[in-house]
Amino acid sequence: MVRVAVVGASGYGAGEAISWLLGHPQAEIAALTSRVEAPVPLSALRPQFRGVELPLVKPLDPDELARVADVAMLALPHGASGEWAGKLLDRGLKVIDFSADFRIRSAELYEKTYGRKHPAPKLLKEAVYGLPEFHRDEVAGARLVANPGCYPTGALLGLIPLAKRRLIQPGSVVIDAKSGVSGAGRKPSAPEGYHFCEVAESIKAYNVSKHRHMPEIESELAAAFGGAEGELSPVSFTPQLVPVQRGILTVIYASVADGVKPGQLRDAFVQDYDGEAFACLLEEGQFPSTGEVVGTNRCDVGLAYDKRVGRVTVITAIDNLAKGMASQAVQNMNLMFGIPETEGLVSPGRNP
Amino acid sequence: MVRVAVVGASGYGAGEAISWLLGHPQAEIAALTSRVEAPVPLSALRPQFRGVELPLVKPLDPDELARVADVAMLALPHGASGEWAGKLLDRGLKVIDFSADFRIRSAELYEKTYGRKHPAPKLLKEAVYGLPEFHRDEVAGARLVANPGCYPTGALLGLIPLAKRRLIQPGSVVIDAKSGVSGAGRKPSAPEGYHFCEVAESIKAYNVSKHRHMPEIESELAAAFGGAEGELSPVSFTPQLVPVQRGILTVIYASVADGVKPGQLRDAFVQDYDGEAFACLLEEGQFPSTGEVVGTNRCDVGLAYDKRVGRVTVITAIDNLAKGMASQAVQNMNLMFGIPETEGLVSPGRNP
Amino acid sequence: MVRVAVVGASGYGAGEAISWLLGHPQAEIAALTSRVEAPVPLSALRPQFRGVELPLVKPLDPDELARVADVAMLALPHGASGEWAGKLLDRGLKVIDFSADFRIRSAELYEKTYGRKHPAPKLLKEAVYGLPEFHRDEVAGARLVANPGCYPTGALLGLIPLAKRRLIQPGSVVIDAKSGVSGAGRKPSAPEGYHFCEVAESIKAYNVSKHRHMPEIESELAAAFGGAEGELSPVSFTPQLVPVQRGILTVIYASVADGVKPGQLRDAFVQDYDGEAFACLLEEGQFPSTGEVVGTNRCDVGLAYDKRVGRVTVITAIDNLAKGMASQAVQNMNLMFGIPETEGLVSPGRNP
Amino acid sequence: MVRVAVVGASGYGAGEAISWLLGHPQAEIAALTSRVEAPVPLSALRPQFRGVELPLVKPLDPDELARVADVAMLALPHGASGEWAGKLLDRGLKVIDFSADFRIRSAELYEKTYGRKHPAPKLLKEAVYGLPEFHRDEVAGARLVANPGCYPTGALLGLIPLAKRRLIQPGSVVIDAKSGVSGAGRKPSAPEGYHFCEVAESIKAYNVSKHRHMPEIESELAAAFGGAEGELSPVSFTPQLVPVQRGILTVIYASVADGVKPGQLRDAFVQDYDGEAFACLLEEGQFPSTGEVVGTNRCDVGLAYDKRVGRVTVITAIDNLAKGMASQAVQNMNLMFGIPETEGLVSPGRNP
Repeated sequence: MVRVAVVGASGYGAGEAISWLLGHPQAEIAALTSRVEAPVPLSALRPQFRGVELPLVKPLDPDELARVADVAMLALPHGASGEWAGKLLDRGLKVIDFSADFRIRSAELYEKTYGRKHPAPKLLKEAVYGLPEFHRDEVAGARLVANPGCYPTGALLGLIPLAKRRLIQPGSVVIDAKSGVSGAGRKPSAPEGYHFCEVAESIKAYNVSKHRHMPEIESELAAAFGGAEGELSPVSFTPQLVPVQRGILTVIYASVADGVKPGQLRDAFVQDYDGEAFACLLEEGQFPSTGEVVGTNRCDVGLAYDKRVGRVTVITAIDNLAKGMASQAVQNMNLMFGIPETEGLVSPGRNP
Repeated sequence: MVRVAVVGASGYGAGEAISWLLGHPQAEIAALTSRVEAPVPLSALRPQFRGVELPLVKPLDPDELARVADVAMLALPHGASGEWAGKLLDRGLKVIDFSADFRIRSAELYEKTYGRKHPAPKLLKEAVYGLPEFHRDEVAGARLVANPGCYPTGALLGLIPLAKRRLIQPGSVVIDAKSGVSGAGRKPSAPEGYHFCEVAESIKAYNVSKHRHMPEIESELAAAFGGAEGELSPVSFTPQLVPVQRGILTVIYASVADGVKPGQLRDAFVQDYDGEAFACLLEEGQFPSTGEVVGTNRCDVGLAYDKRVGRVTVITAIDNLAKGMASQAVQNMNLMFGIPETEGLVSPGRNP
Repeated sequence: MVRVAVVGASGYGAGEAISWLLGHPQAEIAALTSRVEAPVPLSALRPQFRGVELPLVKPLDPDELARVADVAMLALPHGASGEWAGKLLDRGLKVIDFSADFRIRSAELYEKTYGRKHPAPKLLKEAVYGLPEFHRDEVAGARLVANPGCYPTGALLGLIPLAKRRLIQPGSVVIDAKSGVSGAGRKPSAPEGYHFCEVAESIKAYNVSKHRHMPEIESELAAAFGGAEGELSPVSFTPQLVPVQRGILTVIYASVADGVKPGQLRDAFVQDYDGEAFACLLEEGQFPSTGEVVGTNRCDVGLAYDKRVGRVTVITAIDNLAKGMASQAVQNMNLMFGIPETEGLVSPGRNP
Repeated sequence: MVRVAVVGASGYGAGEAISWLLGHPQAEIAALTSRVEAPVPLSALRPQFRGVELPLVKPLDPDELARVADVAMLALPHGASGEWAGKLLDRGLKVIDFSADFRIRSAELYEKTYGRKHPAPKLLKEAVYGLPEFHRDEVAGARLVANPGCYPTGALLGLIPLAKRRLIQPGSVVIDAKSGVSGAGRKPSAPEGYHFCEVAESIKAYNVSKHRHMPEIESELAAAFGGAEGELSPVSFTPQLVPVQRGILTVIYASVADGVKPGQLRDAFVQDYDGEAFACLLEEGQFPSTGEVVGTNRCDVGLAYDKRVGRVTVITAIDNLAKGMASQAVQNMNLMFGIPETEGLVSPGRNP
């Protein structure tokens, strides 16, 4: 039994992690923390947990966590996460961090992207980027896992099979991503923009070509292309807000490299995802929808090659709170503790 | 291990049952049937089941079901259900029927309500109405359980504690119920009315005071009031369609009986629901929302007494596909097979 | 040409009023005010007004309004409205007030309901309740019109025809109302409750039997029943929040008075609404939906009598921002200035 | 007064046209036709037209239309439109066709795209493509206008200013478009795909790189690039379905041509759209949302240049039923009849 502490328990991502862990046969929720004055049941903060037996939510005390838990899932704001990670590692806990603090390997790039000094630069070196499909072994040996962002998960699972074989041209990559509203978190920094009346019946682009997830995508993509440590492979990236609670549909366009035969494109995904439980290549001519993956740890992938323009279109669908966050964290936890990777994670979608 | 066959597997209710059963430690899905030409994976009919290991969906063969399963959950249209139920019972299976065929005890009333002869009048006598909170013992001993309708579940859980103590006046009961769209099923009889553009941004009343669920509510209510077999306790009932996928919010109004003290109203619910896992009385002054119960087997209940008008307002919230159908069926299954009643059924809500 | 000033121009109700006035052949928008530091185009506050010629939005200056406008529509918070109304009336403007300040005739009841001293008790006497279908003549002669609340509009148009003929029993009235989210305004007092993720996929009851609109409904209803000034006719009232932008569906239940014949119920509506442009009685057996009235100044009405319980069910549908607020204000304006009542107000619904 | 017949009056596009025409000071609706057995009021087919005075809906009789109308707006299926267009032109009516029948100039390409013989190849030569911002003069002189498709409108208004100045590279164009559900029409060919429960809470790609609107986009784009008659400029095109009633957000990516300075990109839009009433370039750093344009005839445009990848991102937002169909048809009508182009078309957005 892995004993898990969920830190920052009142938000959407943490709640999702708790839900997955409740269905996990080899994990138990050992502690919940949040900025509360006194211990309260989680259902007081999030009524959908009524009737579910859980530890009380308490203020974060690293010594107590060390006593009761083997691993902490940190669902904290950027910056705060990095500060606590070290204290928990020092006390012998493993850490899976939901924030961006350990996703970018360079403290300088982090500072430029997030507008603040990195809270724990010494830990950057050992942090492992927790995209299991491509970093399985490192995750298995890690103390500190940087759980990927939701947009990067959807983008990279559509790109890496092509990039690592150099089937597409670096610099040609366009990522057009549409996200549900839960991606903004439960307490968005500009809450008026998330008023039901402003979001419903609207589709909206934001942070065009300057979203904070870009360096994360670009550094992992550069690595896939075989670039040196610290290199970025620039992309066009347009995040968009769509009136659904969950789900990200990512449409990727890239120019196919010279001499590549169309069949190689699909083959790359077949080779990489054939034995994968959670990266699912759809049949030729089929394309994913978020409605088919919400509630699952799956990333569905479809692709089409258009010879007229020499471009491949890859489409991926994930649940931003699940494969894009909480269930992927559980997948990483399984790897870190030698539990079968799919344990607690195989589930049908929830739509409708 | 209880071996379960889900009959009529392609619809929303069946899919929901399969999802709950997949998370059940003491049940296994032994067979899936539907009107298919040849065996197909469920994911071909419902893509959200991609990657989940399940038996193939086959045409319904009662002999085969008898070989592989202990109980059949029938998610078939009214009429068809009644026809198959007998064949399956004859072969030794227990049956939990999602249709209305065995919910009304009188073949005459059934015929009047559903406009067709009852398909199996001989079975009516032994069928048990599967509302576990009030028929626990009969369910435990039953071969054939009539799983309650979604509207009746939300209404009766708000009414029975008051009616059985005669705290409210028969004849004064008003039930105003709002349902999500999945209640209409995956293949509604008038599909054009469920076009996204017709349903979104609209609230609509339908079948005012003549919905097919009324006799079911009225006969169970009469029984709670202590009426004789076959009696009906007439109510006002207005079903309404709201643009959500799931959930029913039921607001019930009733005149309090002479001499009743306000405190008795709340006490009735405390007494009946205090030990219940899935009927949850909210604190005074709190009222339920469907967003807090979707994805759970819970019925949340709140109430208020207004002395100016002498009426009590009771509000209940359920997930129409869960407590209103599939997870309630699993609750009944647990009782029928001597499994702890909550097994596989305690889960947090899924919103967002 | 009536010259109209819209005061408090940045909110949803004001924006709706501006939209109706833009299509009005005999009105012109003479001034827009809001709490701005310096004059700005309305499109800077509400981008959907891009490209529409309008006066700049300026801070409120009653002297300037008196120079340029004949009437002010006040879309201000409760309390503030009452304070400004007097100053504008003193300068010769007529006033149509969207707030609750002049809807309740008693300063004591106002204080009890809104928790604050009435800002202008001397004006209460002359204020006219602006429900044109029943107060047409008083509105025509008024300087100060209290524009009805959205819930009261939907409730009273379904009740008055029955109450004024005493066809229903006072005290038996139940009002179950479901509203779209725009009813909470653009800057709700508890914005976290209106986060898209909290509202979507949920149906929620709130302020059960203690909503601020109750005294407004109860005093107008008492008057319809023939009660004395200041009397209230108590009702059960349950407001509910539904994930649509606009629209209120109100379902009303009442016990029919002794000796009343069923046909009289429908006749009452025929008599009162036959010549009305904006109160529309549907054919027997038909019931309204909000999707059919959003974008219009119409209130659709359907009713059914259930002899088994002796109750009539009346269902009304309105657009809360239109007939429930802004277009009703324009209807009142037409009456106050001797313009044909339907001018600028006949429009089809906007769904989808 | 222009007398307008709306042919095929029961659908969403026709209803929208009727709504715009009702607010038009120089147009009157002279006739409505649909496949009805006997004349009926429009409100019998579409209840949101209750209370609006309109001609009865009758079966289509070209001779009668010729007597009462000057122009026919054809809201008919592909194929049928082309058949009727000739008969109406022969009788002296002008025709604005909402279908695709006259949008593609080549009968061969039409046949390939729509899988049927062109119904009226002789008329192809005189048909004018009704995108007023770029074909104003030809529309003014036309008898037969092919009203553009919704996707093409959103794409071309973002592309033509760049293409006609050769600021972007042909062949590099990627068009990622997200549409509301009304784009599928009121009676979609595969209605089960538009069930509320299938569409809500989902984002879905469809017809990837093979949507029927592609040849329309590619031929107009080729013309803008200066290509010869019949040439196509191939693009990547991914249409997506999003759970909103209306609106299309189109994100366009293109590689900037050699030697082009970044400032030229924005300048191109300034020059083309500065005097335009309905193509609106947003300020630098601002990007459109469909919520800001639904209910208007506006196309909002924003753009960003990313020098790292040498690509420009152009984003446009339209209301698919308005600028993408019905109000654009009225704009064309204004031009064809010498009415000021903006007459009846300046309106604020309707959100919420």
